[in-house]
Amino acid sequence: MQFSNVLIDGQAQAVAVHAHRHFPLRQSPHASGELGARIARGEDLRALGNEAIRAAAGMDAAGASFAPLLTNPGKVICLGLNYIDHAKEGGRARPDYPWFFLRAASSLMGHGQSALLPSVSTQYDFEAELALVIGKRGKHLKGEAALDVVLGYSCFNDLSVRDFQKKTPQWTIGKNFDASGAFGPSLVLAQDLPRGAKGLSIRCRVNGQTLQEANTSDMIFGVQETLEILSACMTLEPGDVIVMGTPSGVGFARTPPLWLRHADTVEVDIGSVGTLLNTVQQEVA
Amino acid sequence: MQFSNVLIDGQAQAVAVHAHRHFPLRQSPHASGELGARIARGEDLRALGNEAIRAAAGMDAAGASFAPLLTNPGKVICLGLNYIDHAKEGGRARPDYPWFFLRAASSLMGHGQSALLPSVSTQYDFEAELALVIGKRGKHLKGEAALDVVLGYSCFNDLSVRDFQKKTPQWTIGKNFDASGAFGPSLVLAQDLPRGAKGLSIRCRVNGQTLQEANTSDMIFGVQETLEILSACMTLEPGDVIVMGTPSGVGFARTPPLWLRHADTVEVDIGSVGTLLNTVQQEVA
Repeated sequence: MQFSNVLIDGQAQAVAVHAHRHFPLRQSPHASGELGARIARGEDLRALGNEAIRAAAGMDAAGASFAPLLTNPGKVICLGLNYIDHAKEGGRARPDYPWFFLRAASSLMGHGQSALLPSVSTQYDFEAELALVIGKRGKHLKGEAALDVVLGYSCFNDLSVRDFQKKTPQWTIGKNFDASGAFGPSLVLAQDLPRGAKGLSIRCRVNGQTLQEANTSDMIFGVQETLEILSACMTLEPGDVIVMGTPSGVGFARTPPLWLRHADTVEVDIGSVGTLLNTVQQEVA
Repeated sequence: MQFSNVLIDGQAQAVAVHAHRHFPLRQSPHASGELGARIARGEDLRALGNEAIRAAAGMDAAGASFAPLLTNPGKVICLGLNYIDHAKEGGRARPDYPWFFLRAASSLMGHGQSALLPSVSTQYDFEAELALVIGKRGKHLKGEAALDVVLGYSCFNDLSVRDFQKKTPQWTIGKNFDASGAFGPSLVLAQDLPRGAKGLSIRCRVNGQTLQEANTSDMIFGVQETLEILSACMTLEPGDVIVMGTPSGVGFARTPPLWLRHADTVEVDIGSVGTLLNTVQQEVA
Protein backbone atom coordinates (compact mmCIF):
# COMPACT_ATOMS: atom_id res chain seq x y z
CA MET A 1 0.00 0.00 0.00
CA GLN A 2 1.18 3.54 -0.71
CA PHE A 3 0.57 6.87 1.01
CA SER A 4 1.12 10.48 0.05
CA ASN A 5 0.98 13.80 1.85
CA VAL A 6 -1.11 16.20 -0.23
CA LEU A 7 -2.29 19.77 0.21
CA ILE A 8 -6.05 19.99 0.78
CA ASP A 9 -7.30 23.55 1.45
CA GLY A 10 -3.66 24.48 2.05
CA GLN A 11 -3.15 21.86 4.77
CA ALA A 12 -0.99 18.76 4.37
CA GLN A 13 -3.16 15.67 4.72
CA ALA A 14 -2.24 11.99 4.41
CA VAL A 15 -3.98 9.99 1.69
CA ALA A 16 -3.88 6.35 0.65
CA VAL A 17 -2.98 5.93 -3.02
CA HIS A 18 -4.95 3.31 -4.96
CA ALA A 19 -5.70 2.95 -8.69
CA HIS A 20 -4.48 6.50 -9.44
CA ARG A 21 -6.83 7.95 -6.83
CA HIS A 22 -6.20 9.58 -3.44
CA PHE A 23 -8.25 8.55 -0.39
CA PRO A 24 -7.87 10.93 2.60
CA LEU A 25 -7.32 9.05 5.86
CA ARG A 26 -9.84 9.58 8.65
CA GLN A 27 -8.79 12.42 10.88
CA SER A 28 -8.94 12.67 14.67
CA PRO A 29 -10.26 15.95 16.09
CA HIS A 30 -7.53 18.44 17.05
CA ALA A 31 -4.77 16.17 15.70
CA SER A 32 -2.79 16.92 12.58
CA GLY A 33 -3.75 14.79 9.59
CA GLU A 34 -0.29 15.21 8.08
CA LEU A 35 1.50 11.94 7.28
CA GLY A 36 4.55 12.53 9.49
CA ALA A 37 2.47 13.49 12.52
CA ARG A 38 0.37 10.34 12.08
CA ILE A 39 3.51 8.17 11.92
CA ALA A 40 4.93 9.89 15.01
CA ARG A 41 1.65 9.15 16.85
CA GLY A 42 1.85 5.50 15.84
CA GLU A 43 -1.33 5.39 13.74
CA ASP A 44 -1.95 2.16 11.81
CA LEU A 45 -1.63 3.48 8.26
CA ARG A 46 -2.58 0.25 6.55
CA ALA A 47 -5.83 -0.07 8.51
CA LEU A 48 -6.67 3.60 7.95
CA GLY A 49 -5.85 3.24 4.26
CA ASN A 50 -8.09 0.20 3.80
CA GLU A 51 -10.90 1.99 5.62
CA ALA A 52 -10.50 5.12 3.46
CA ILE A 53 -10.49 3.16 0.19
CA ARG A 54 -13.70 1.32 1.19
CA ALA A 55 -15.46 4.45 2.44
CA ALA A 56 -15.23 6.95 -0.40
CA ALA A 57 -14.65 7.46 -4.09
CA GLY A 58 -11.43 9.39 -3.55
CA MET A 59 -9.93 12.11 -5.72
CA ASP A 60 -8.09 11.86 -9.01
CA ALA A 61 -4.38 11.75 -8.12
CA ALA A 62 -3.51 13.67 -11.29
CA GLY A 63 -4.80 16.95 -9.85
CA ALA A 64 -3.04 16.71 -6.50
CA SER A 65 -0.62 19.22 -4.98
CA PHE A 66 2.00 17.42 -2.94
CA ALA A 67 3.59 18.48 0.32
CA PRO A 68 6.94 16.95 1.33
CA LEU A 69 6.22 13.28 2.13
CA LEU A 70 6.67 14.24 5.80
CA THR A 71 6.26 17.93 6.50
CA ASN A 72 8.22 18.15 9.72
CA PRO A 73 10.22 14.95 10.31
CA GLY A 74 11.89 14.46 13.68
CA LYS A 75 15.24 14.26 11.95
CA VAL A 76 16.45 13.76 8.39
CA ILE A 77 19.80 11.94 8.44
CA CYS A 78 21.66 11.83 5.13
CA LEU A 79 24.61 9.67 4.03
CA GLY A 80 27.34 11.02 1.78
CA LEU A 81 29.60 8.87 -0.43
CA ASN A 82 27.51 5.71 -0.10
CA TYR A 83 28.10 4.42 -3.64
CA ILE A 84 31.72 3.64 -4.53
CA ASP A 85 31.55 5.09 -8.06
CA HIS A 86 30.22 8.37 -6.63
CA ALA A 87 32.95 8.51 -3.99
CA LYS A 88 35.52 7.98 -6.75
CA GLU A 89 34.08 10.63 -9.08
CA GLY A 90 34.48 13.13 -6.22
CA GLY A 91 38.08 12.05 -5.65
CA ARG A 92 37.28 10.25 -2.37
CA ALA A 93 38.25 6.78 -1.11
CA ARG A 94 35.69 4.17 -0.07
CA PRO A 95 34.58 5.32 3.40
CA ASP A 96 34.88 2.92 6.33
CA TYR A 97 32.17 4.82 8.23
CA PRO A 98 29.26 6.74 6.69
CA TRP A 99 29.61 10.48 6.19
CA PHE A 100 26.47 11.65 7.99
CA PHE A 101 24.90 15.09 7.84
CA LEU A 102 21.44 16.40 8.68
CA ARG A 103 18.79 18.27 6.74
CA ALA A 104 16.35 20.64 8.40
CA ALA A 105 12.64 20.42 7.58
CA SER A 106 12.83 23.94 6.12
CA SER A 107 14.87 22.53 3.22
CA LEU A 108 12.17 20.07 2.11
CA MET A 109 9.64 20.27 -0.70
CA GLY A 110 7.18 17.83 -2.22
CA HIS A 111 6.79 16.15 -5.58
CA GLY A 112 5.91 18.78 -8.18
CA GLN A 113 6.98 21.70 -5.98
CA SER A 114 9.72 23.97 -7.31
CA ALA A 115 13.39 23.31 -6.58
CA LEU A 116 14.69 26.76 -5.69
CA LEU A 117 17.88 27.75 -7.57
CA PRO A 118 19.45 30.11 -5.01
CA SER A 119 20.17 33.72 -5.87
CA VAL A 120 23.64 33.38 -4.30
CA SER A 121 24.93 30.43 -6.36
CA THR A 122 24.91 28.89 -9.82
CA GLN A 123 26.31 25.51 -8.71
CA TYR A 124 23.01 23.70 -8.16
CA ASP A 125 23.35 19.92 -8.48
CA PHE A 126 21.05 16.87 -8.38
CA GLU A 127 21.42 13.66 -6.33
CA ALA A 128 18.96 10.78 -6.70
CA GLU A 129 18.57 8.88 -3.44
CA LEU A 130 16.51 6.21 -1.72
CA ALA A 131 14.88 7.47 1.51
CA LEU A 132 13.41 5.42 4.32
CA VAL A 133 10.97 6.36 7.05
CA ILE A 134 11.26 4.96 10.57
CA GLY A 135 8.07 3.45 12.02
CA LYS A 136 9.28 2.10 15.37
CA ARG A 137 11.50 3.50 18.06
CA GLY A 138 14.89 1.82 18.27
CA LYS A 139 18.35 2.11 19.82
CA HIS A 140 21.32 -0.27 19.69
CA LEU A 141 19.67 -2.27 16.91
CA LYS A 142 21.53 -5.42 15.90
CA GLY A 143 21.37 -7.76 12.94
CA GLU A 144 18.52 -8.34 10.55
CA ALA A 145 15.94 -7.35 13.18
CA ALA A 146 17.15 -3.76 12.71
CA LEU A 147 15.08 -3.66 9.52
CA ASP A 148 11.88 -4.07 11.56
CA VAL A 149 11.97 -0.37 12.49
CA VAL A 150 11.56 0.64 8.82
CA LEU A 151 7.99 1.62 7.95
CA GLY A 152 8.61 2.25 4.26
CA TYR A 153 10.59 3.83 1.46
CA SER A 154 10.35 6.80 -0.87
CA CYS A 155 12.40 8.88 -3.33
CA PHE A 156 14.60 11.84 -2.42
CA ASN A 157 16.49 14.42 -4.48
CA ASP A 158 19.31 15.75 -2.29
CA LEU A 159 19.82 18.94 -4.32
CA SER A 160 23.16 20.43 -3.36
CA VAL A 161 24.62 23.92 -3.62
CA ARG A 162 28.18 22.83 -4.32
CA ASP A 163 30.13 26.03 -3.71
CA PHE A 164 28.48 26.42 -0.30
CA GLN A 165 28.86 22.69 0.45
CA LYS A 166 32.60 23.09 -0.07
CA LYS A 167 33.17 26.41 1.71
CA THR A 168 34.32 24.43 4.75
CA PRO A 169 34.73 20.70 5.45
CA GLN A 170 31.16 20.68 6.88
CA TRP A 171 28.77 20.04 3.99
CA THR A 172 25.67 20.99 5.99
CA ILE A 173 25.12 24.54 4.72
CA GLY A 174 25.17 23.42 1.06
CA LYS A 175 22.52 20.79 1.86
CA ASN A 176 20.07 23.05 3.66
CA PHE A 177 19.01 25.75 1.23
CA ASP A 178 15.27 26.40 1.08
CA ALA A 179 13.36 23.99 -1.16
CA SER A 180 16.42 21.87 -1.99
CA GLY A 181 15.40 18.49 -0.57
CA ALA A 182 12.68 16.90 -2.68
CA PHE A 183 10.85 14.08 -0.88
CA GLY A 184 8.08 11.86 -2.25
CA PRO A 185 5.72 11.39 -3.93
CA SER A 186 4.69 8.28 -2.00
CA LEU A 187 5.60 6.10 0.94
CA VAL A 188 5.72 2.44 -0.11
CA LEU A 189 5.40 0.13 2.90
CA ALA A 190 8.50 -1.97 3.56
CA GLN A 191 6.60 -5.26 3.38
CA ASP A 192 5.71 -4.47 -0.25
CA LEU A 193 9.40 -4.20 -1.26
CA PRO A 194 12.44 -6.50 -1.11
CA ARG A 195 13.95 -6.70 2.40
CA GLY A 196 16.19 -3.65 2.94
CA ALA A 197 14.99 -2.26 -0.42
CA LYS A 198 17.77 -4.18 -2.15
CA GLY A 199 17.97 -4.70 -5.90
CA LEU A 200 16.00 -1.64 -7.00
CA SER A 201 17.04 0.41 -10.01
CA ILE A 202 17.74 4.07 -9.18
CA ARG A 203 17.96 6.77 -11.84
CA CYS A 204 18.09 10.53 -12.19
CA ARG A 205 16.88 12.24 -15.35
CA VAL A 206 17.39 15.92 -16.17
CA ASN A 207 15.11 17.21 -18.92
CA GLY A 208 14.41 13.58 -19.82
CA GLN A 209 18.05 12.53 -20.16
CA THR A 210 19.29 9.79 -17.81
CA LEU A 211 22.35 11.09 -15.93
CA GLN A 212 22.50 8.70 -12.97
CA GLU A 213 21.75 4.99 -13.23
CA ALA A 214 22.57 2.39 -10.59
CA ASN A 215 21.06 -0.19 -8.27
CA THR A 216 20.35 0.11 -4.55
CA SER A 217 22.37 -3.09 -4.04
CA ASP A 218 25.44 -0.99 -4.97
CA MET A 219 25.21 0.95 -1.68
CA ILE A 220 28.34 0.62 0.46
CA PHE A 221 26.35 0.77 3.71
CA GLY A 222 23.04 -0.98 3.19
CA VAL A 223 19.88 -0.17 5.12
CA GLN A 224 20.44 -2.73 7.88
CA GLU A 225 24.04 -1.73 8.51
CA THR A 226 23.12 1.98 8.49
CA LEU A 227 20.40 1.39 11.09
CA GLU A 228 22.87 -0.50 13.29
CA ILE A 229 25.51 2.23 13.00
CA LEU A 230 23.12 5.14 13.62
CA SER A 231 21.23 3.52 16.47
CA ALA A 232 24.49 2.93 18.36
CA CYS A 233 24.56 6.73 18.70
CA MET A 234 21.00 7.98 18.75
CA THR A 235 17.45 6.78 19.24
CA LEU A 236 15.60 6.37 15.96
CA GLU A 237 12.00 7.51 16.36
CA PRO A 238 8.81 7.09 14.33
CA GLY A 239 8.82 9.75 11.64
CA ASP A 240 12.59 10.01 11.36
CA VAL A 241 14.00 9.80 7.84
CA ILE A 242 17.27 8.36 6.52
CA VAL A 243 18.47 9.35 3.05
CA MET A 244 20.79 6.70 1.69
CA GLY A 245 23.23 8.54 -0.59
CA THR A 246 23.57 9.00 -4.34
CA PRO A 247 25.28 7.00 -7.10
CA SER A 248 27.71 8.44 -9.66
CA GLY A 249 26.75 10.81 -12.46
CA VAL A 250 26.10 14.04 -10.55
CA GLY A 251 26.68 17.39 -12.24
CA PHE A 252 29.83 18.62 -10.48
CA ALA A 253 31.83 15.54 -11.51
CA ARG A 254 31.09 15.97 -15.23
CA THR A 255 33.38 17.66 -17.76
CA PRO A 256 32.33 20.40 -18.09
CA PRO A 257 30.23 20.48 -14.90
CA LEU A 258 26.49 20.35 -15.49
CA TRP A 259 24.61 22.80 -13.25
CA LEU A 260 20.83 22.94 -13.06
CA ARG A 261 19.20 26.02 -14.52
CA HIS A 262 15.83 27.73 -14.34
CA ALA A 263 13.04 25.58 -15.85
CA ASP A 264 15.04 22.33 -15.89
CA THR A 265 13.04 19.28 -14.82
CA VAL A 266 14.69 16.71 -12.56
CA GLU A 267 13.30 13.25 -11.93
CA VAL A 268 14.35 10.64 -9.38
CA ASP A 269 13.04 7.27 -10.46
CA ILE A 270 13.38 4.23 -8.16
CA GLY A 271 11.95 0.89 -9.30
CA SER A 272 8.70 -0.03 -7.43
CA VAL A 273 9.10 3.06 -5.20
CA GLY A 274 8.08 5.86 -7.56
CA THR A 275 9.10 8.84 -9.60
CA LEU A 276 9.77 12.20 -7.98
CA LEU A 277 9.66 15.18 -10.35
CA ASN A 278 10.62 18.79 -9.64
CA THR A 279 11.19 21.82 -11.83
CA VAL A 280 13.96 24.28 -11.07
CA GLN A 281 12.90 27.85 -10.36
CA GLN A 282 15.30 30.77 -10.07
CA GLU A 283 15.07 32.56 -6.70
CA VAL A 284 14.58 36.30 -7.00
CA ALA A 285 16.26 37.76 -3.92
CA MET B 1 11.69 38.94 31.28
CA GLN B 2 12.69 35.28 31.32
CA PHE B 3 10.89 32.09 30.33
CA SER B 4 11.52 28.42 30.94
CA ASN B 5 10.07 25.19 29.63
CA VAL B 6 9.26 22.95 32.57
CA LEU B 7 7.67 19.55 32.98
CA ILE B 8 4.24 19.71 34.60
CA ASP B 9 2.48 16.32 34.87
CA GLY B 10 5.06 15.04 32.37
CA GLN B 11 4.22 17.67 29.73
CA ALA B 12 6.53 20.53 28.78
CA GLN B 13 4.86 23.85 29.60
CA ALA B 14 6.15 27.40 29.24
CA VAL B 15 6.44 29.47 32.40
CA ALA B 16 7.48 33.05 33.10
CA VAL B 17 10.30 33.27 35.64
CA HIS B 18 10.02 36.00 38.26
CA ALA B 19 11.50 36.32 41.75
CA HIS B 20 12.57 32.64 41.79
CA ARG B 21 9.05 31.52 40.98
CA HIS B 22 7.52 29.95 37.86
CA PHE B 23 4.22 31.27 36.46
CA PRO B 24 2.64 28.97 33.82
CA LEU B 25 1.48 30.86 30.75
CA ARG B 26 -2.21 30.69 29.86
CA GLN B 27 -2.87 27.84 27.49
CA SER B 28 -5.12 27.73 24.45
CA PRO B 29 -7.32 24.63 24.10
CA HIS B 30 -5.87 21.90 21.86
CA ALA B 31 -2.62 23.85 21.37
CA SER B 32 0.68 22.82 22.88
CA GLY B 33 1.77 24.93 25.84
CA GLU B 34 5.41 24.11 25.19
CA LEU B 35 7.67 27.15 24.76
CA GLY B 36 8.90 26.32 21.25
CA ALA B 37 5.41 25.67 19.91
CA ARG B 38 4.24 29.01 21.36
CA ILE B 39 7.12 30.84 19.67
CA ALA B 40 6.42 29.07 16.36
CA ARG B 41 2.77 30.19 16.64
CA GLY B 42 3.84 33.78 17.25
CA GLU B 43 2.42 34.15 20.77
CA ASP B 44 3.29 37.36 22.63
CA LEU B 45 5.39 35.90 25.43
CA ARG B 46 5.89 39.17 27.29
CA ALA B 47 2.14 39.88 27.45
CA LEU B 48 1.40 36.29 28.49
CA GLY B 49 4.15 36.45 31.08
CA ASN B 50 2.88 39.67 32.63
CA GLU B 51 -0.63 38.26 32.74
CA ALA B 52 0.58 35.04 34.40
CA ILE B 53 2.60 36.88 37.04
CA ARG B 54 -0.40 39.07 37.93
CA ALA B 55 -2.86 36.17 37.99
CA ALA B 56 -1.36 33.59 40.28
CA ALA B 57 1.11 32.87 43.04
CA GLY B 58 3.27 30.63 40.87
CA MET B 59 5.44 27.72 41.92
CA ASP B 60 8.80 27.68 43.62
CA ALA B 61 11.39 27.46 40.82
CA ALA B 62 13.66 25.36 43.03
CA GLY B 63 11.47 22.28 42.65
CA ALA B 64 11.09 22.46 38.87
CA SER B 65 11.99 19.74 36.36
CA PHE B 66 13.21 21.34 33.15
CA ALA B 67 12.59 20.22 29.59
CA PRO B 68 14.95 21.43 26.85
CA LEU B 69 14.28 25.18 26.46
CA LEU B 70 12.52 24.31 23.20
CA THR B 71 11.42 20.69 22.96
CA ASN B 72 11.24 20.36 19.20
CA PRO B 73 12.88 23.37 17.50
CA GLY B 74 12.43 23.80 13.75
CA LYS B 75 16.17 23.60 13.32
CA VAL B 76 19.21 23.87 15.59
CA ILE B 77 22.11 25.32 13.63
CA CYS B 78 25.52 25.16 15.34
CA LEU B 79 28.78 26.96 14.56
CA GLY B 80 32.14 25.29 14.96
CA LEU B 81 35.44 27.12 15.46
CA ASN B 82 33.85 30.48 16.25
CA TYR B 83 36.46 31.59 18.83
CA ILE B 84 39.99 31.97 17.52
CA ASP B 85 41.68 30.43 20.59
CA HIS B 86 39.46 27.35 20.24
CA ALA B 87 40.23 27.02 16.52
CA LYS B 88 43.93 27.19 17.38
CA GLU B 89 43.78 24.63 20.21
CA GLY B 90 42.26 22.20 17.68
CA GLY B 91 45.02 22.93 15.16
CA ARG B 92 42.72 24.90 12.83
CA ALA B 93 43.15 28.27 11.15
CA ARG B 94 40.74 31.17 11.63
CA PRO B 95 37.79 30.25 9.39
CA ASP B 96 36.66 32.71 6.72
CA TYR B 97 33.18 31.16 6.70
CA PRO B 98 31.43 29.50 9.67
CA TRP B 99 31.62 25.72 10.00
CA PHE B 100 27.91 24.93 10.30
CA PHE B 101 26.35 21.67 11.40
CA LEU B 102 22.89 20.74 12.66
CA ARG B 103 21.60 19.10 15.80
CA ALA B 104 18.42 17.04 15.85
CA ALA B 105 15.83 17.61 18.58
CA SER B 106 16.43 14.05 19.81
CA SER B 107 19.88 15.14 21.03
CA LEU B 108 18.52 17.83 23.38
CA MET B 109 17.97 17.79 27.13
CA GLY B 110 17.04 20.42 29.68
CA HIS B 111 18.74 22.04 32.63
CA GLY B 112 19.19 19.42 35.34
CA GLN B 113 18.57 16.48 33.04
CA SER B 114 21.34 13.91 32.68
CA ALA B 115 24.03 14.22 30.02
CA LEU B 116 24.25 10.68 28.66
CA LEU B 117 27.82 9.33 28.47
CA PRO B 118 27.47 6.89 25.55
CA SER B 119 28.18 3.21 25.98
CA VAL B 120 30.19 3.25 22.72
CA SER B 121 32.70 5.99 23.64
CA THR B 122 34.77 7.40 26.47
CA GLN B 123 35.65 10.66 24.67
CA TYR B 124 32.80 12.80 26.00
CA ASP B 125 33.64 16.51 25.95
CA PHE B 126 32.01 19.77 27.05
CA GLU B 127 31.48 23.00 25.05
CA ALA B 128 29.96 26.11 26.66
CA GLU B 129 28.02 28.13 24.09
CA LEU B 130 25.63 31.04 23.73
CA ALA B 131 22.37 30.05 21.99
CA LEU B 132 19.80 32.33 20.40
CA VAL B 133 16.17 31.73 19.53
CA ILE B 134 14.61 33.19 16.40
CA GLY B 135 11.31 35.05 16.92
CA LYS B 136 10.59 36.39 13.43
CA ARG B 137 10.78 34.86 9.99
CA GLY B 138 13.64 36.19 7.89
CA LYS B 139 15.60 35.60 4.69
CA HIS B 140 18.36 37.66 3.07
CA LEU B 141 18.75 39.73 6.24
CA LYS B 142 21.16 42.65 5.94
CA GLY B 143 22.91 44.90 8.42
CA GLU B 144 21.94 45.68 11.97
CA ALA B 145 18.25 45.04 11.26
CA ALA B 146 19.15 41.33 11.09
CA LEU B 147 19.21 41.37 14.89
CA ASP B 148 15.48 42.15 14.95
CA VAL B 149 14.66 38.49 14.24
CA VAL B 150 16.25 37.41 17.55
CA LEU B 151 13.70 36.77 20.29
CA GLY B 152 16.19 35.96 23.03
CA TYR B 153 19.22 34.11 24.31
CA SER B 154 20.02 31.12 26.46
CA CYS B 155 22.87 28.75 27.42
CA PHE B 156 23.88 25.63 25.54
CA ASN B 157 26.31 22.81 26.27
CA ASP B 158 27.30 21.27 22.93
CA LEU B 159 28.52 17.99 24.43
CA SER B 160 30.60 16.19 21.83
CA VAL B 161 31.59 12.57 21.34
CA ARG B 162 35.04 13.26 19.91
CA ASP B 163 35.98 9.90 18.42
CA PHE B 164 32.67 9.79 16.51
CA GLN B 165 32.96 13.48 15.57
CA LYS B 166 36.29 12.69 13.93
CA LYS B 167 35.44 9.38 12.25
CA THR B 168 34.89 11.34 9.00
CA PRO B 169 35.22 15.03 8.08
CA GLN B 170 31.48 15.45 8.86
CA TRP B 171 31.16 16.24 12.58
CA THR B 172 27.41 15.66 12.67
CA ILE B 173 27.30 12.16 14.16
CA GLY B 174 29.50 13.15 17.13
CA LYS B 175 27.14 16.05 17.85
CA ASN B 176 23.88 14.11 17.80
CA PHE B 177 24.09 11.47 20.48
CA ASP B 178 21.01 11.18 22.70
CA ALA B 179 20.95 13.71 25.55
CA SER B 180 24.13 15.48 24.48
CA GLY B 181 22.83 18.98 23.76
CA ALA B 182 21.93 20.79 26.99
CA PHE B 183 19.69 23.82 26.42
CA GLY B 184 18.38 26.25 29.02
CA PRO B 185 17.44 26.93 31.72
CA SER B 186 15.83 30.19 30.60
CA LEU B 187 15.16 32.34 27.58
CA VAL B 188 16.21 35.94 28.27
CA LEU B 189 14.52 38.36 25.89
CA ALA B 190 16.91 40.14 23.55
CA GLN B 191 15.78 43.61 24.65
CA ASP B 192 16.98 42.81 28.17
CA LEU B 193 20.56 42.14 26.98
CA PRO B 194 23.22 44.11 25.11
CA ARG B 195 22.53 44.27 21.34
CA GLY B 196 23.78 41.04 19.74
CA ALA B 197 24.51 39.67 23.25
CA LYS B 198 27.96 41.24 23.07
CA GLY B 199 30.26 41.62 26.04
CA LEU B 200 28.95 38.74 28.15
CA SER B 201 31.26 36.51 30.15
CA ILE B 202 31.02 32.84 29.18
CA ARG B 203 32.38 30.02 31.34
CA CYS B 204 32.32 26.28 31.68
CA ARG B 205 32.90 24.58 35.02
CA VAL B 206 33.41 20.86 35.55
CA ASN B 207 32.92 19.72 39.14
CA GLY B 208 33.21 23.37 40.17
CA GLN B 209 36.52 24.04 38.38
CA THR B 210 36.51 26.70 35.65
CA LEU B 211 37.86 25.16 32.42
CA GLN B 212 36.58 27.63 29.82
CA GLU B 213 36.48 31.37 30.33
CA ALA B 214 35.95 33.96 27.60
CA ASN B 215 33.67 36.74 26.44
CA THR B 216 30.98 36.65 23.75
CA SER B 217 32.70 39.63 22.11
CA ASP B 218 35.53 37.21 21.24
CA MET B 219 33.32 35.39 18.71
CA ILE B 220 34.75 35.48 15.16
CA PHE B 221 31.29 35.65 13.58
CA GLY B 222 29.02 37.70 15.81
CA VAL B 223 25.27 37.26 15.98
CA GLN B 224 24.45 39.84 13.29
CA GLU B 225 26.96 38.49 10.80
CA THR B 226 25.85 34.90 11.44
CA LEU B 227 22.23 35.84 10.78
CA GLU B 228 23.22 37.55 7.52
CA ILE B 229 25.28 34.55 6.36
CA LEU B 230 22.67 31.92 7.28
CA SER B 231 19.70 33.81 5.91
CA ALA B 232 21.38 34.12 2.51
CA CYS B 233 20.89 30.35 2.31
CA MET B 234 17.79 29.47 4.30
CA THR B 235 14.72 31.03 5.81
CA LEU B 236 15.05 31.53 9.55
CA GLU B 237 11.74 30.77 11.26
CA PRO B 238 10.28 31.45 14.70
CA GLY B 239 11.51 28.72 17.01
CA ASP B 240 14.75 28.05 15.14
CA VAL B 241 17.90 28.02 17.28
CA ILE B 242 21.46 29.09 16.53
CA VAL B 243 24.28 27.88 18.77
CA MET B 244 27.22 30.22 18.54
CA GLY B 245 30.32 28.07 19.12
CA THR B 246 32.63 27.48 22.06
CA PRO B 247 35.79 29.20 23.35
CA SER B 248 39.06 27.44 24.17
CA GLY B 249 39.59 25.10 27.08
CA VAL B 250 37.68 22.02 25.96
CA GLY B 251 38.75 18.58 27.14
CA PHE B 252 40.23 17.09 23.98
CA ALA B 253 42.77 19.92 23.62
CA ARG B 254 44.19 19.45 27.14
CA THR B 255 47.31 17.47 28.02
CA PRO B 256 46.34 14.84 28.96
CA PRO B 257 42.83 15.05 27.48
CA LEU B 258 40.08 15.55 30.05
CA TRP B 259 37.06 13.38 29.32
CA LEU B 260 33.81 13.64 31.25
CA ARG B 261 32.96 10.70 33.47
CA HIS B 262 29.90 9.34 35.24
CA ALA B 263 28.66 11.71 37.98
CA ASP B 264 30.66 14.73 36.80
CA THR B 265 28.73 18.00 36.92
CA VAL B 266 29.09 20.45 34.04
CA GLU B 267 27.95 24.07 34.20
CA VAL B 268 27.66 26.62 31.41
CA ASP B 269 27.52 30.07 32.94
CA ILE B 270 26.83 33.13 30.76
CA GLY B 271 26.62 36.56 32.39
CA SER B 272 22.99 37.86 32.63
CA VAL B 273 21.77 34.82 30.65
CA GLY B 274 21.95 32.08 33.25
CA THR B 275 23.63 28.93 34.47
CA LEU B 276 22.94 25.57 32.87
CA LEU B 277 23.85 22.55 34.97
CA ASN B 278 23.90 18.89 33.95
CA THR B 279 25.27 15.76 35.56
CA VAL B 280 26.89 13.05 33.46
CA GLN B 281 25.27 9.64 33.57
CA GLN B 282 26.78 6.50 32.07
CA GLU B 283 24.55 4.87 29.47
CA VAL B 284 23.93 1.18 30.10
CA ALA B 285 23.46 -0.34 26.66
